Amino acid sequence: MSHVQQSLEIAYIGGGSRGWAWKLMADLALEPALTGRVRLYDIDQEAARLNERIGNRLSSRSDVKGKWHYETRTSLKDALEGVDVVIISIMPGTFKEMEVDVHAPEPFGIYQSVGDTTGPGGLFRALRTIPIYEEFAQAIKTWAPKAWVINYTNPMALCVRTLYEVFPEVKAFGCCHEVFGTQELLASMVVHEGLVQDPPQRREIHINVLGLNHCTWIDRASFRGVDLLPMYRRFAERHREEGFETGGERTWENDYFTSAHKVKFDLFLRFGLIAAAGDRHLAEFFPVSWYLKDPETVRSWKFSLTPVSWRVENQKSLEARARRLASGEEEVELAPSGEEGVLMLKAIAGVEETVSNVNLPNRGQIANLPPGTVVETNALFRYDSVQPVQAGALPSSLLGHLTRHVAQQETISRAGLERNWDLAFRAFLSDPLVAHLSPSEAERLFSLMREKLSPSMPGWE
Amino acid sequence: MSHVQQSLEIAYIGGGSRGWAWKLMADLALEPALTGRVRLYDIDQEAARLNERIGNRLSSRSDVKGKWHYETRTSLKDALEGVDVVIISIMPGTFKEMEVDVHAPEPFGIYQSVGDTTGPGGLFRALRTIPIYEEFAQAIKTWAPKAWVINYTNPMALCVRTLYEVFPEVKAFGCCHEVFGTQELLASMVVHEGLVQDPPQRREIHINVLGLNHCTWIDRASFRGVDLLPMYRRFAERHREEGFETGGERTWENDYFTSAHKVKFDLFLRFGLIAAAGDRHLAEFFPVSWYLKDPETVRSWKFSLTPVSWRVENQKSLEARARRLASGEEEVELAPSGEEGVLMLKAIAGVEETVSNVNLPNRGQIANLPPGTVVETNALFRYDSVQPVQAGALPSSLLGHLTRHVAQQETISRAGLERNWDLAFRAFLSDPLVAHLSPSEAERLFSLMREKLSPSMPGWE
Amino acid sequence: MSHVQQSLEIAYIGGGSRGWAWKLMADLALEPALTGRVRLYDIDQEAARLNERIGNRLSSRSDVKGKWHYETRTSLKDALEGVDVVIISIMPGTFKEMEVDVHAPEPFGIYQSVGDTTGPGGLFRALRTIPIYEEFAQAIKTWAPKAWVINYTNPMALCVRTLYEVFPEVKAFGCCHEVFGTQELLASMVVHEGLVQDPPQRREIHINVLGLNHCTWIDRASFRGVDLLPMYRRFAERHREEGFETGGERTWENDYFTSAHKVKFDLFLRFGLIAAAGDRHLAEFFPVSWYLKDPETVRSWKFSLTPVSWRVENQKSLEARARRLASGEEEVELAPSGEEGVLMLKAIAGVEETVSNVNLPNRGQIANLPPGTVVETNALFRYDSVQPVQAGALPSSLLGHLTRHVAQQETISRAGLERNWDLAFRAFLSDPLVAHLSPSEAERLFSLMREKLSPSMPGWE
Amino acid sequence: MSHVQQSLEIAYIGGGSRGWAWKLMADLALEPALTGRVRLYDIDQEAARLNERIGNRLSSRSDVKGKWHYETRTSLKDALEGVDVVIISIMPGTFKEMEVDVHAPEPFGIYQSVGDTTGPGGLFRALRTIPIYEEFAQAIKTWAPKAWVINYTNPMALCVRTLYEVFPEVKAFGCCHEVFGTQELLASMVVHEGLVQDPPQRREIHINVLGLNHCTWIDRASFRGVDLLPMYRRFAERHREEGFETGGERTWENDYFTSAHKVKFDLFLRFGLIAAAGDRHLAEFFPVSWYLKDPETVRSWKFSLTPVSWRVENQKSLEARARRLASGEEEVELAPSGEEGVLMLKAIAGVEETVSNVNLPNRGQIANLPPGTVVETNALFRYDSVQPVQAGALPSSLLGHLTRHVAQQETISRAGLERNWDLAFRAFLSDPLVAHLSPSEAERLFSLMREKLSPSMPGWE
Repeated sequence: MSHVQQSLEIAYIGGGSRGWAWKLMADLALEPALTGRVRLYDIDQEAARLNERIGNRLSSRSDVKGKWHYETRTSLKDALEGVDVVIISIMPGTFKEMEVDVHAPEPFGIYQSVGDTTGPGGLFRALRTIPIYEEFAQAIKTWAPKAWVINYTNPMALCVRTLYEVFPEVKAFGCCHEVFGTQELLASMVVHEGLVQDPPQRREIHINVLGLNHCTWIDRASFRGVDLLPMYRRFAERHREEGFETGGERTWENDYFTSAHKVKFDLFLRFGLIAAAGDRHLAEFFPVSWYLKDPETVRSWKFSLTPVSWRVENQKSLEARARRLASGEEEVELAPSGEEGVLMLKAIAGVEETVSNVNLPNRGQIANLPPGTVVETNALFRYDSVQPVQAGALPSSLLGHLTRHVAQQETISRAGLERNWDLAFRAFLSDPLVAHLSPSEAERLFSLMREKLSPSMPGWE
Repeated sequence: MSHVQQSLEIAYIGGGSRGWAWKLMADLALEPALTGRVRLYDIDQEAARLNERIGNRLSSRSDVKGKWHYETRTSLKDALEGVDVVIISIMPGTFKEMEVDVHAPEPFGIYQSVGDTTGPGGLFRALRTIPIYEEFAQAIKTWAPKAWVINYTNPMALCVRTLYEVFPEVKAFGCCHEVFGTQELLASMVVHEGLVQDPPQRREIHINVLGLNHCTWIDRASFRGVDLLPMYRRFAERHREEGFETGGERTWENDYFTSAHKVKFDLFLRFGLIAAAGDRHLAEFFPVSWYLKDPETVRSWKFSLTPVSWRVENQKSLEARARRLASGEEEVELAPSGEEGVLMLKAIAGVEETVSNVNLPNRGQIANLPPGTVVETNALFRYDSVQPVQAGALPSSLLGHLTRHVAQQETISRAGLERNWDLAFRAFLSDPLVAHLSPSEAERLFSLMREKLSPSMPGWE
Repeated sequence: MSHVQQSLEIAYIGGGSRGWAWKLMADLALEPALTGRVRLYDIDQEAARLNERIGNRLSSRSDVKGKWHYETRTSLKDALEGVDVVIISIMPGTFKEMEVDVHAPEPFGIYQSVGDTTGPGGLFRALRTIPIYEEFAQAIKTWAPKAWVINYTNPMALCVRTLYEVFPEVKAFGCCHEVFGTQELLASMVVHEGLVQDPPQRREIHINVLGLNHCTWIDRASFRGVDLLPMYRRFAERHREEGFETGGERTWENDYFTSAHKVKFDLFLRFGLIAAAGDRHLAEFFPVSWYLKDPETVRSWKFSLTPVSWRVENQKSLEARARRLASGEEEVELAPSGEEGVLMLKAIAGVEETVSNVNLPNRGQIANLPPGTVVETNALFRYDSVQPVQAGALPSSLLGHLTRHVAQQETISRAGLERNWDLAFRAFLSDPLVAHLSPSEAERLFSLMREKLSPSMPGWE
Repeated sequence: MSHVQQSLEIAYIGGGSRGWAWKLMADLALEPALTGRVRLYDIDQEAARLNERIGNRLSSRSDVKGKWHYETRTSLKDALEGVDVVIISIMPGTFKEMEVDVHAPEPFGIYQSVGDTTGPGGLFRALRTIPIYEEFAQAIKTWAPKAWVINYTNPMALCVRTLYEVFPEVKAFGCCHEVFGTQELLASMVVHEGLVQDPPQRREIHINVLGLNHCTWIDRASFRGVDLLPMYRRFAERHREEGFETGGERTWENDYFTSAHKVKFDLFLRFGLIAAAGDRHLAEFFPVSWYLKDPETVRSWKFSLTPVSWRVENQKSLEARARRLASGEEEVELAPSGEEGVLMLKAIAGVEETVSNVNLPNRGQIANLPPGTVVETNALFRYDSVQPVQAGALPSSLLGHLTRHVAQQETISRAGLERNWDLAFRAFLSDPLVAHLSPSEAERLFSLMREKLSPSMPGWE
């Protein structure tokens, strides 16, 4: 099928400070079927301007197939008016707040491996993000009501939910690569187990996805007509104790984003479904007594607590790199990122349909989660259309663990939209990671975090 | 409205060993609008025969308005064939098993105040009760498919659910008096707060009920056109620290079934709804860190752990009393029990409609709990008809605590029907009272209980 | 139970021109448990003032138990601000419009026996009523958001729906006496069939109600513990041909509101449920070939087409009577109206709970009609609370006839709120009474009616 | 992606007498990725044996890429045991019965253009087919419970529904090519309207499908990033009067299966969605006054009533051709049939995922049709998996026309399963094509058809 190139006008909100923007630039550059303009908007205008230079420098290269023009915009209105697509990838607050999110609960025996999705850290992060997303939703409603909105920010579910709560007609969905990591693990497995010799493409591993972002599950997986579940059972049993690593340079001991999948194997053997996120995310959804009791327990499960101090350092090196890329001292590497954003853009533009997993309000795609909850399942992407695929039901033995978080999502959403500290505390008290505290201890921790964080929470008294 | 007396044929399953049967006898004797026959069936035939004598002796008294004939039956078929109503009130297993249910988890830091509904004790009790209720359901389907079935046995929700799982057309509901206790508390409050001088009838306190049995909630309460919620807030705040007791002989320190309502007040101030069950039941539905951390914590909340040794002693005195009642040495006291069973029988027989709270599979009476879950709400009782009243939705801040138990209900139900130890352990591991154990500790406790209990669990390997 | 009298502040919207207001006045006067003030508001201020005089004159009588003060208000704001209850009973438009509604379709072979609920007449009446109810809903939202709103206006379902569409938190329900007529028929039957000698109170006939207003059904009926369905089957079979009349002065031949129940019997024998509305209303919900083919067919079913000319004459006599009642020439007759409005007011005021049938948005009370549709079922009325009772499901053989009207309700609602002629015509074309016309004939009739009616349809171009 | 060939074991039920079997044979022969065995089962064993010879003769040809072995089986058990896939394509009854289905209602003014789906003909056809499908469902449950079952028989929805009613775990879906015809029309349109020069592949026209089989709708259609709805509006307006034909040999005047799409255009302009079935099927779902009033009206809409006499003649020529194909006198033409069955088989076998429209019980894929109704939407086909894609909701203006048929589906299903003539007549009376008859005329027609048809309806009294 030969197409003319489809042209898109994209607003990119945020992205000023991290590597996500460059990954997207590379993916766009590698895609011949699309072209267009990317409007960059970031509260750190300097960062946006650096990205503008990096992007346009890339577009000028001869090895680039998809040419895009990058432009910094300094108001949401200018960024949004008339665009086809809005991409949002922001950091809500600074590392100073994240330091509180993640580390303030530690003296109370709450060790969070990420702290951006659930637990005390995820909750406070949500409370400060929801007002920002309210503003985005209003702006999109006003200036780009027909645009597709792709969210990459965490807490994913609450960001997407806020967009829909404020502007129910919004065409928004949330993208997350955590499931891809599990597909990669399955791709490694089929080689390791001798089914094929050469590692297959990740997308050849067909999976049915259902759950909440970062606590997503796979209940059917196949590869070239082979059911992978029985193989995964054997695999998980064999590697339950020692874990499994693919053997690259990155190991769970030297890289915060790598694990030995022991949590994943343990969860499979407990519930019979493949947990489809990084171990560090999964661990936060279960009682602290399971995987996060204390730093030693975490080590025994072969994954790491990500300290915010590391993020601060990492950010500095990214900033230095941004300057080198902008000046031409260094070139953007033209390699596929492994993300599926551009695949989705192609489908929405009518080039080629695709099926991928996304976060959307439940309309029955998960039969036994309530309507309105933002859930993660596969969807069919086509021209101007994203339709969830019916994923079926979660088994009841797992359901109780998820429905707690479903109720949390609703309570936190309402607490954030109403700027309601009382409701926020009710959610805090009901968080699984807080359950081992007495209510009065929980109150103490909540007050402490509130005191430190509320000055930088706009809109909260 | 003058009626002829309606006649009913009732099968009473169980009841041989406890005071419930005598309460019903007294209530029936006091009711002029009904008459008929009660067929007594108990695996302890001797107990059934004692009750037969007690009942018939009572019917022969001149101060009795509703005359009933009592007959022991020795097979389910004989008990059920052709009856209008089946009442089930059994003790599944013996105190020997209950000793394990309640006390075996204590060395693991799990203190259960009742142990018959949720937690490790409730779970094992359910596992041995479900096969018994399967048999009842089959028998009812065969010999009394049109009969109304009233359940009084715990675990209430799982007993009722089993009847519906096995025989979906069954006309069964479950009755529990725990909500009445909270109505009594509200009746005391309106006097204590000076709204009226004389304590009102319990049924004058109008309430909207929603939740799961023993974790039921009231979100609207009124008395003679006065909204009681604001008054209860003041009341709960005032008595939060010290608790409230009505001042009778029974206090939380000398009676296992009495509390100072501190848990109830605390839950109201946390969630904004009136918890409507005894504190000892409510406590078991929340994290152990809240009310059940250890015996000292329990005392500080002014309620008690009910030791099974007490039940054993109590049972002995009931048995002695049964003999006295049967021989005429002692007379059944003709006083209303405070239960509503006879009120319901009258409504079903077409004498007088009534509204009361019962346990039924959810068909939307609670808007945000899933269909099929056995829930507790008000229902309208009329001739041959029990229709749930739409109770509305639970607030999300409370919902997560309940949906865990909803998922447990489904998992335990399936585990019991399939005699599936693996699924039973999944449920065990997901129980809130078990959450502070590591999975391996949980496995140890489960194995211990299984070893002790499985010999007396018919149908389980 | 002795109560102090409860006091209510009521806004009565409309009622200026018809007998409804006087019925309510009499019912209020007869009720000792309530007192208060009624604010009268009508676009015909003169009529409101007459009612004020009639009401206050009545209150001054010594035989009146419930004293009420009546006051005319000349703005919606003054009528509504701070009231406890709003009663709406208006005539949308004048008899001039109703003349078109009912009679314009006759040359096209569409004979409407009432023309205010469904069919071409019901549709146009709805289109001009919806904007009026939009205004009411906005006014209630602004000035009396906590008030209970009782609607008596037709088309009932669309009036109630409009209130909820515009102000979803409104506490509104719709009352209609059509079901009562069927209860009266059943009360006559139990005497006629020899079950009792004296006609029982209507409310002793217990019924389960489910359906759409004016196309409501009874699937369970009992009286003092006797199931009335088998008796009704024999009764319907016996009277199918000749019909049944109670033998009073009013017969189907001399009174437009009386029938011989032949349609009701026919529908029962076709579908197995008791149709619970007047035959003249029921007939309009089915294909014209059934009961409304032509005036002869109508006569053969022993009910009448109500000509608007009769209504005009009747109105004149009511107006004359109003003047007599206001001047004291004639006295309001102190007899119960048979309506249940005051019973409901008592329940809402907390005096005494009651169960009655009302029109409310479906929240599952009818299991197989969609959420949001305004349906009629029983509800439990209590202090500040109206809760639907779960009525079960309609049989599929009847369901298709009702779901057409469910879809119509939604389309007409949207057409009215959007003032969308195109959508209005789609609804018109899909109306069962229009089905025998070709689309082009239907267009001709629609244009004709639109031309005549649109000048008096405010807000429609 | 290079695959080894996947091997499948297929049972083909029916197919003995018509061209469908040969189309499948050709499609299988053209597909290199699949191979295996087809077991042929037909009550006409001679026909099955002819097909066996035709199939094996084809497989022996060198130009065939997918080799299949064909074998006649003489019992359902032998046909089904152990297969991966069951294909059912039978003719329920003979043309003798179809003659009654289609033509007996004509003297009553009911002209059915097909008579196999809805209307009196569709109803009686369903009543005799349901018992046959009950038997199939039982056989599949017993001998091939894990097999995928593909139905091609009409009435499609009721065949599929019967399979699920009898064996709820069945993995069955129904395939119908009517939607493809509308895609072809859209493919012609894009050429005709000058968007492209060369007619595109049908599957390049991306559509969202929702509705009931033969009354299916398209609410989104696109081609290479172009929204086709606005173009279709212009197209329908332009061709509303004269119709549109692609200009091939077949015209609505010489071919019963061809139309000028006038009904389709009219429906689009009335409802705003593209009707996606042949005009002759669509017409039967609406009031007779629209398209089927009499033969002249039908001609004016430029489609035909298909007389059963033509089917009889056509069958004879197919039988003659079967003999020629079996003997080698004529060769099976190796051209793609345009059907998607083999595409689906490939997906289910894990070769390549596909999206296509199928008939499945509603589990929310159509938001405003009830659960359990067999509906038609897109689904995602993958290895051992068919998942509906969420298609959204039908507009209310169209909904009422469809929900009548939804209720009919349920009533007819129950009537068939219970062999309940009374219920069957209730459905008959509620059929839109019967609405212009008075109930007594309807009874007359029903009795007539029942008398003629019941002798050949096994299981009916």
